Amino acid sequence: MFRPEIKVFDCTIRDGGLANDSHFDLDTVRAVYAACCAAGIDYVELGYRNSREMFDPAEFGPWRFCDEDQLRKATDGIDPNNTKVAVMQDAHKAVAEDVLPCDESVVDMIRVATYVKDIDKAIHLATNATDKGYECTINIMAISHTGSPLLDEGLQQLEEETKAKAVYIVDSFGSLYSEDVHFLIEKFQMYLKTKEVGAHFHNNQQLAFANTIEAVIRGANYLDGTFNGLGRAAGNCPLELLLGFLKNPKLRIEPVLDAIGKAILPLKDELDWGFHIPYMITGILDEHPRSAMAWMKGDDRNDFVKFYRELTEDDGSD
Amino acid sequence: MFRPEIKVFDCTIRDGGLANDSHFDLDTVRAVYAACCAAGIDYVELGYRNSREMFDPAEFGPWRFCDEDQLRKATDGIDPNNTKVAVMQDAHKAVAEDVLPCDESVVDMIRVATYVKDIDKAIHLATNATDKGYECTINIMAISHTGSPLLDEGLQQLEEETKAKAVYIVDSFGSLYSEDVHFLIEKFQMYLKTKEVGAHFHNNQQLAFANTIEAVIRGANYLDGTFNGLGRAAGNCPLELLLGFLKNPKLRIEPVLDAIGKAILPLKDELDWGFHIPYMITGILDEHPRSAMAWMKGDDRNDFVKFYRELTEDDGSD
Repeated sequence: MFRPEIKVFDCTIRDGGLANDSHFDLDTVRAVYAACCAAGIDYVELGYRNSREMFDPAEFGPWRFCDEDQLRKATDGIDPNNTKVAVMQDAHKAVAEDVLPCDESVVDMIRVATYVKDIDKAIHLATNATDKGYECTINIMAISHTGSPLLDEGLQQLEEETKAKAVYIVDSFGSLYSEDVHFLIEKFQMYLKTKEVGAHFHNNQQLAFANTIEAVIRGANYLDGTFNGLGRAAGNCPLELLLGFLKNPKLRIEPVLDAIGKAILPLKDELDWGFHIPYMITGILDEHPRSAMAWMKGDDRNDFVKFYRELTEDDGSD
Repeated sequence: MFRPEIKVFDCTIRDGGLANDSHFDLDTVRAVYAACCAAGIDYVELGYRNSREMFDPAEFGPWRFCDEDQLRKATDGIDPNNTKVAVMQDAHKAVAEDVLPCDESVVDMIRVATYVKDIDKAIHLATNATDKGYECTINIMAISHTGSPLLDEGLQQLEEETKAKAVYIVDSFGSLYSEDVHFLIEKFQMYLKTKEVGAHFHNNQQLAFANTIEAVIRGANYLDGTFNGLGRAAGNCPLELLLGFLKNPKLRIEPVLDAIGKAILPLKDELDWGFHIPYMITGILDEHPRSAMAWMKGDDRNDFVKFYRELTEDDGSD
């Protein structure tokens, strides 16, 4: 009954890096990597390969750059058990020159994150990656703010001009409902005749896992999750829920449960990811969570009506 | 675009009462009731009308019994604004004699909760309620443990032998996926020609809201939620998410957001509802959460593999 085409991606360290400027301890990264390998996860994304000109190394941790020697420290001595290593490049914040030929690298896959307006930059980085021997995906962020015809044209371009294996729907604001997922997957499938559709959902409305299931039902085969949903603001689809749902016998939930207890929940002392009402409000309103993240740090953090009105009451007619 | 047949139920105090033996302060109950009235919620369930022979009043709070004078204290002086009051009777833990004629009562609706094996008891209480002038629903608990033909026969009985307005699918263990919801609603609709289908979902797998949306899409019109998902263990469908989704212009989210900040989140000091890995594990395994609730109180609470194995490794062949 299981679909062998399905690939499971862990992006705990990469997406979680948006919550802590990529300052994870090496022990945490190794625990996540080892758990993914033992659990039969297909790909583990250990961070960004972004530019030091865009991100100050004095401010951002090593997983924002994922230098090869850093990735070796994260993976050395751990049996990969068929789990591949991915890094992400932001189309507008990364450069092709930072990517070695694949056979000299720890990395197997490069995922290029892009807004639809930057799709030519994304194609440039994707082509650089596949030319150098990497697998590649392209992840279209802020999909809910991406109307036709720009998205349709972009998908057609990605189909014709790249060798990416998959193109992702990225619900950056956690605003999509199941019917939106259904609509978008059909649109993606209409253009992407030679590529898979990927699903990366945020949990502002507690729908990240449900929308991932919906995506699977509709035919998406590249699925993202993170340990305990760790990620910026409301976080992501919890990988453990996805592992409870998927039927592929190669997948094992226990290593992930173990690492959550030992390596992830202790991070709660410093990082507060997960469902909170301000994140829900930006999700319902289909907005970036940054206003909610700021609100959560203020004295009025539990005055949800005030926050809601701040976001809605200046919607004057024009 | 909205469906006027949809009725929204708040069951914060009733379902939350399973987490604190129905010991809510009067101020909390009044805050929830007032917010529901202001928000345009159709029904607010203020507790159980269960038997003092089954529940010791020295142990359980007043919302386990919902005496009429107690309900008056909860509602007096608040404009109901078309919001009706409901109480729940457990088919196997309540008696017909505790129910006054409706015109002498604060209560408008009696919801009878039942396991499918107790359906004759439920019909007895439902008939008592409708004979005395109340609206009535029947809520079939532990639906995931209810195989055919018992469920099919029970639904046929409920259709023929009661004047209940709706029959609920109650996902007591939080184990249902969207395809299960779809299957069950079609089954309910096959038998219930004169009644609505209701949806009451638990959040063990973060699917309570998503499954409620799925139920709406499939035609369910009676929808349960609680403030911030308050409820036993992983809790319920968060009412605020449901209000963000539903389009009926009579519904307002702000009173619910306000009450969550002022009256519900302060309860977190004593009550720990919401998503936790042990609750997820019982959800995935389709079990009652009681083992997880006990585990959460132990020293090994974050040793999730140990808990998982306790629940799975004694599954010997037989």
